[in-house]
Order: sequence, then structure tokens, then C-alpha cells
Amino acid sequence: MKLVRMGLIGFGVIGSNHARYLGNGEVSGAVLSCICDINPERLRLAKELYPHVKLFDDYRKMIASGEVDAVFVATPHYEHPPMAVEALKNGLHVLIEKPAGVYTKQVLEMNEVAGKSDRVFGIMYNQRTNPVYQKARDLVKSGKLGEIKRTNWIIDWYRPQSYYDSGGWRATWSGEGGGVLLNQDLHQLDLWQWICGMPKRVRAFCYYGKYHNIEVEDDVTAFVEYENGATGVFVTSTAMTPETNRFEIIGDRGKIVIEDGKLTFYRLRVPERQFNREYDGGKIAKPECWKCEIPVEPGQGGQHREITQNFVNAILKGEKLLAPGIEGINGLQISNAMHLSSWLDDWVEIPVDPDLFYEKLMEKIHGKN
Amino acid sequence: MKLVRMGLIGFGVIGSNHARYLGNGEVSGAVLSCICDINPERLRLAKELYPHVKLFDDYRKMIASGEVDAVFVATPHYEHPPMAVEALKNGLHVLIEKPAGVYTKQVLEMNEVAGKSDRVFGIMYNQRTNPVYQKARDLVKSGKLGEIKRTNWIIDWYRPQSYYDSGGWRATWSGEGGGVLLNQDLHQLDLWQWICGMPKRVRAFCYYGKYHNIEVEDDVTAFVEYENGATGVFVTSTAMTPETNRFEIIGDRGKIVIEDGKLTFYRLRVPERQFNREYDGGKIAKPECWKCEIPVEPGQGGQHREITQNFVNAILKGEKLLAPGIEGINGLQISNAMHLSSWLDDWVEIPVDPDLFYEKLMEKIHGKN
Repeated sequence: MKLVRMGLIGFGVIGSNHARYLGNGEVSGAVLSCICDINPERLRLAKELYPHVKLFDDYRKMIASGEVDAVFVATPHYEHPPMAVEALKNGLHVLIEKPAGVYTKQVLEMNEVAGKSDRVFGIMYNQRTNPVYQKARDLVKSGKLGEIKRTNWIIDWYRPQSYYDSGGWRATWSGEGGGVLLNQDLHQLDLWQWICGMPKRVRAFCYYGKYHNIEVEDDVTAFVEYENGATGVFVTSTAMTPETNRFEIIGDRGKIVIEDGKLTFYRLRVPERQFNREYDGGKIAKPECWKCEIPVEPGQGGQHREITQNFVNAILKGEKLLAPGIEGINGLQISNAMHLSSWLDDWVEIPVDPDLFYEKLMEKIHGKN
Repeated sequence: MKLVRMGLIGFGVIGSNHARYLGNGEVSGAVLSCICDINPERLRLAKELYPHVKLFDDYRKMIASGEVDAVFVATPHYEHPPMAVEALKNGLHVLIEKPAGVYTKQVLEMNEVAGKSDRVFGIMYNQRTNPVYQKARDLVKSGKLGEIKRTNWIIDWYRPQSYYDSGGWRATWSGEGGGVLLNQDLHQLDLWQWICGMPKRVRAFCYYGKYHNIEVEDDVTAFVEYENGATGVFVTSTAMTPETNRFEIIGDRGKIVIEDGKLTFYRLRVPERQFNREYDGGKIAKPECWKCEIPVEPGQGGQHREITQNFVNAILKGEKLLAPGIEGINGLQISNAMHLSSWLDDWVEIPVDPDLFYEKLMEKIHGKN
């Protein structure tokens, strides 16, 4: 294959953004060959903007058409897994928008199909291209931070009521399957685990329609424990402004703080555990700490285009995926655990019980709670 | 009365510090007339440093001696309430070191006695003299921040094992009645409620001897809810270095961030709730925010000396107390609730059940858990 023929499913806000750079030829080795949408209005717009692209109103027909090598799933959350499964089963490569799905039950099924397939399966975690998070991950994975002891992310996404009122599917259990955790925090939940690893259990406090006239959560505080005993806090809201975005990671060898896009690394000259063992002065004392200026590439990285390019390169050249599709379940495990913990008012272990979560979610959708 | 004769109970590390500025005549209207300690070594040192001061080895005798108008209680935590009660009942004014006590049962008794007395009763919350916290309180109490929606304090006090090993009473249930919450976080727990008000219920995660060979907690994360629906997080540890000290308060009219002693105020031009109601653009939008440089007096204020001076002025001139003794229970309610929540692994309402907490604390002291 010299050129990957991409078929886009979903020509909404996000899909049309992907179509733009693909249609402009900004992803080398790829061509936008087909667009599928169930909304005739959107298809008319697609025809106007991309006259040479084949149009479909049924994704199954597009998948079966022989006109595409890869599909790009940019539909509402619930549809990501069934569409990905259909495409993978038909031998196509698949790039899905985040979240991977709404509940782990459906995502586990998708991952099982993907695991048996030799096709490339990616997810649009575009924040993984952000140099500041790449550097944080580098510092953790290379051992520079030492073993993690505590993580803390406060991340706000202010949204006024009018924003929620602008789309009927928004902020509903049936439309999105969640609120700030599913819609706004996708990236942070992914990056949190990408950098710090997966928590083992979660105790979360979610407030539903607390500051807005919506069904789903708009204010969350979650406490987590990791396998090694480290703890973490994740605080998020769509009602707080000015917004906070501050991510702190403390390890045995220092501390990383990312605030407003800027990373600072505090490096201990002697690891804390070693200092704790060896210091014998009997007083309040601490290891020497160096505030380090770490070079970080400016900007936010290649974002969507870079993830799509990486996906195409994976197909054409076997390049390693920056955001493998099967990792999409990780952030979802965390948000599912947060929801479930608040519904049960109790601890929830990760991985969450997929059937229990599904059952509770269905109750929410059918207004039983 | 022209001159308040102060009797100091406890000539340890903290007591001898108070003796120094009192002995130097740095508190106008006060004279250090007596010192009491049960340790003969300490009394010998006191005699050497303050040859004109009367010495006692029994606080009851000092209280009954007629030589003092006010007592300054600087003994271990557990002894503050009984000593304060004895002094108040004997018609003396009382200034106690923090914490007010170890469990609310004993502090409620003390407050009841204080409530019936016409004597001045103060507590050494010296951080209330810190201009940065006074300014934060001013912004909240004057309505500039608007109704509080979220509070968040991350406060570390790094302590190596050797520090804990240096005093047998340190970090034991019988000696201190707690760890980082009782010893290090006294000020922050008081300031948190002094500025933001008391929480209504608490769900806390305390880890006992997690990073040190001690009985008590050295790592805590606590989640709280306030009466008005606001939420809060308090994270503290003696194992994290470099230490974080970041206090954030978000209100309807803006945000205060105090980090490393510096206060920043973000002021919304239109209150958030009003913006949320009135904005009808259907998009992601937010009220205009002004980052304001607020004048704050440099330094940490008069600290111990200022609190003592204020106490003396209250006796001599009826000056209002900056830190009334009866408010000492507030921070203790919060720390007791945090302990109890972690012991029960459940929510705890404030005020805590004084008998239940006492019972559980006794179990800890007697090693039943």
C-alpha cells in the first residue's frame, strides 16, 4: 500500500475538522476517500467541500464498499466500539475518536476484536503529542522522578448553561454517558494514567447537575490509591472560573509541577527514602533540592494531525503508535470507577465490574435513579 | 490592673520561646512572674535565665499562689484543657498553646467553663497574624470572592525518621494523640476554617506509619463538604519533599491562590452564577477575569509575640481577641473528623460524636487497633 484511503464516519464538529486537514493533503500517505454521515444536511456540506469524496449514509456500506483501507470513527461516544468492531472485522484499520466508549463492557469487546486483528487500531488522544506531557512522562519513565508517591490534578473546564443547551445530546446519560469526566476530562484521565500508571481503587465524589441544569456530573473530586501505595487526587468541574489546570507529581527523587502549560522539575540531590534512612540529626531536615529548567518544545505538538499521521505511518511503515486504540480503555476504567464509586458511595476497584457498571448506567439512562 | 503577671506552664521548646520575649519585656503591659515545669532540669535552666521569676513544679500551686493574673499553657497537647479549666475556675486569664486539646470531649468541657467565665481565654494561633491569610480572610468576609464553591489546600511538612526518633512522646497516640494533623497542620486546619468556614462532613484517607516508623498518620487526603454545597480537599504529608504549600479558594466572584506565601487574586468582572444565567451564546465562554495585584504587608506578622500582646491588651483594654480560645475546637473538630472517618472508613459529620471519637482514640492508645 502506498496511499491509505481513509473513510471518515461522522462529519460533525470534530469529524469535519479531521476532514479539513486530510482533505488538504496535510497527512502524507493518506487520502480522504469517503465520508459517512446519517444527517443529509451534513452530507450536502461534505459534498460541497469535498466534491471528489464518496459519500455514504450507512457506515456498514462504506466499510463493505472496498473504497477504504482505514476508517476514522468520529461519531458520538456510544457508537465508537460497534463501528470499530465492524471495521476491524472487515479487515480495515481503525482510528477512533475518544473516549473509546462509554462503558468498559463494550470497550472490552472492541479490544478483544482488536487483539485478534492484525490491523492498526489507534485512538485520537491528541494531547499525547503535547511536549509538556511527553516530558513529564519521560521524567517518570526514565526514573528521574523516582517511584511515585503522590499525584494531584486540578483541572477545570468552564461551561455556561447556554453551552449545554446548544445540543440536545449534550450532558445526558443517553447522549454522552457522562458529563465532565466523559466529555472534557478525556485527555487528562488518559494522560494521568499514561504518565503515572493506573490506580488500583477509587473513592469519588461526583455531583450531578449541581451547577447546571443537566443530568450528568459537573463537579467531581476523586481520591485514588495505586498499587505501590501512592495516592492521588483528581478535581474537576465545569462551574469553576477562572479555571485551574495544575498537575503535580511527587516522586522519591523530586517533584514535577505542570501549571498553565509550563513544566517545572524539582530534583532532589538524594532520594527522599534514602535521606529518610540515612539522616540522623534528629531535627527538621530535608534533602537538597534543585529547581531545574527542563527544555520542553514550545507549543502543543502536532495534535490531531500528528496522531493521524502517526496512524497512517503505522499502517504504511509499521511505526509505533503514540496512542494505541486498546489503551483507550484505561481512562474509561478510571471515569467508570469514579461514576460507580459515587453511585455506590463506596470504594471501587479497578478494573471495574463491567456488568455492574453497565447495569447502573442503564438505570441512569432510564431515569431509575 | 496596670501590669498582667503571666505564669508560664511548661518550659519546653515552645514555652522557653514564649519566656524569652516575655522576659525581655517585649510584650507591653505584661511581666513574666512565674514559670512552672515538672522537669527539675528545665527549672534549673529557667532559674539561670530568669533569676527574678518564681518557679513552681506543680501548676495547681502556681495557679493558687496569688502571684499570677494569667497563665500561659505550653505543655503537651493532652494537658491544655485540664490546666486551662483549673486556671479559669480560679479566676485567671488563660492563653493556651495549640491544639486546644486532642479530642473534642475535653475541649467542649474547657469551652463550657470558659463560656461561664468572664476571664480572657486565648489560643496561640500565631498564623492568624500572617498578613497573607488575613488578606485572604478579608477578601472572603468582605464578599469580594463571592460565595465559596471550592477550597483546596496541599500542605507538606517534611520530617525524616530521625526527627520522630528524637522525642519518645512524638508521633504516638498517647503522647500527641495524632500525627501530621495534630502536630504540623494545626495552623492550616484553623486557617482553613477561619477563612472558608467549617465543613459539614468529611471523608478522609489517613495512612498511619506509612512512610515512617510511627504509630500515627504521616499521609492524609481529606474531602469535605460545606453547608452551602461547596467542596474542599486537604492534602498533607510529612513524607513529601520538596514540600508543597498551595491554598486555593474559588468563589462566585473569582479565585484566590496562596502559594509559597504569595497571594494572587483573580477577580471576575461578572459573578460566575450571573454569567451562567445571562450568557446565551451557546458556546464555550466565560466571564472576563482580572488578575489583581493585591497589597499584602510583607513578612509573617507579629506571630507569637503579637498573639500574646493581643491577649494582654484584651485583659487590660478589652481589645478583641484575634484568636479566641473557644475557637480552638474548630480545627480540632476537623482533624478529629478526619481521623474518625479513616478509622470507620466512612463519612463523618461535623461536629463529631465526642464520645465515639474518645472511645476510638482510647483504643488506639491501648493498641487495640
